[in-house]
Amino acid sequence: MSSEAHVGRRGLMLVLSSPSGAGKTTLSRALLESDGNITMSVSATTRPARPGETHGVDYYFLSTEDFGIMRNKGEFLEHAKVFGNYYGTPAKPVMDALSKGRDVLFDIDWQGTQQLEEAAHEDVVKVFILPPSAHDLERRLNNRAQDPAHVVASRMEKASDEISHYQEYDYIIINDEVEKSLANLKAILAAERLKRHRLTGLSNFVKGLRDAL
Amino acid sequence: MSSEAHVGRRGLMLVLSSPSGAGKTTLSRALLESDGNITMSVSATTRPARPGETHGVDYYFLSTEDFGIMRNKGEFLEHAKVFGNYYGTPAKPVMDALSKGRDVLFDIDWQGTQQLEEAAHEDVVKVFILPPSAHDLERRLNNRAQDPAHVVASRMEKASDEISHYQEYDYIIINDEVEKSLANLKAILAAERLKRHRLTGLSNFVKGLRDAL
Repeated sequence: MSSEAHVGRRGLMLVLSSPSGAGKTTLSRALLESDGNITMSVSATTRPARPGETHGVDYYFLSTEDFGIMRNKGEFLEHAKVFGNYYGTPAKPVMDALSKGRDVLFDIDWQGTQQLEEAAHEDVVKVFILPPSAHDLERRLNNRAQDPAHVVASRMEKASDEISHYQEYDYIIINDEVEKSLANLKAILAAERLKRHRLTGLSNFVKGLRDAL
Repeated sequence: MSSEAHVGRRGLMLVLSSPSGAGKTTLSRALLESDGNITMSVSATTRPARPGETHGVDYYFLSTEDFGIMRNKGEFLEHAKVFGNYYGTPAKPVMDALSKGRDVLFDIDWQGTQQLEEAAHEDVVKVFILPPSAHDLERRLNNRAQDPAHVVASRMEKASDEISHYQEYDYIIINDEVEKSLANLKAILAAERLKRHRLTGLSNFVKGLRDAL
């Protein structure tokens, strides 16, 4: 008698949030490069494409009308208006990926995370990245080119607001050394892939084991 | 202003359960050797010490009377009677370890796991190890020396009963290759150590970050 039932896995949504200046972008890129089974979520936006940006790769560029139609049909996992433009995550490509056992990475703030959580709680893994010290955070927020004072002030306010939501996340990474933080991120991904509730075909597999005893 | 508040961590209880013959003992030993921050839980028992066994290392060897007193005082995290002897996990050494940020490994069955979960839900991480196939499981259960048929039969019945509780566990490791399973176990441990709810001093650390902005 055979117990060769195949155990598969449903993909997961790995959400990374952090205040600006905590090193999240570097970590995201390194994770995507090191792991062939996770891809970045592609957002839809109503803002115009910039030179070099490709539809379907950098963003799905939509008219405000089309964006509104999709939103009204509930076809976004999360959406927001930022500086007069709409941004959102189309649900279908993400759900298709998950059902094939592929994981999707999200670089979104606490508000997007809350919406994602409401839309797909069981599939969402939430990681919050913190800078190692206030000194480090200040330095990184101030160092971005020669931004006007009001831009720096607004970025700091947003960073403070973002940090205040750390308690809504499952995991905390204090980004002291990039290599160590990347290893931690990879461990989270590896562990979450072993969660029982993501596995498919497990009850048949177990039945096969028990039938043999 | 300083944000040098120290972020620490409460230890966790890593529970490994599996049917006999799934390779759990090998994995436990390898994990203990590879990670200096996790130690094996030491059980108390009323069975006599065997040659070479050391009190406080292999077991705490107790009289039936002393065991009963501790049990009545609620000083065990879990306990059971097996083949006429009592076994239990004294709570104090485990709780002391956790409060120092040290992790404790438990090699217990589904019944012990349920009791542990009731005693300390937030601290418990439950991993179930399955053999890769029915063929493999049968082979390993039959291969143990020249046991009498009724011993083999009883072991198989116990294995089947144990497997039937896989749904009570957080993580599943299908132990196909030991090296890969060990890597998976280490990933689970690394990830669980980053869980927000285990971190101590985090709110002060975050306050320090926000005060600087």
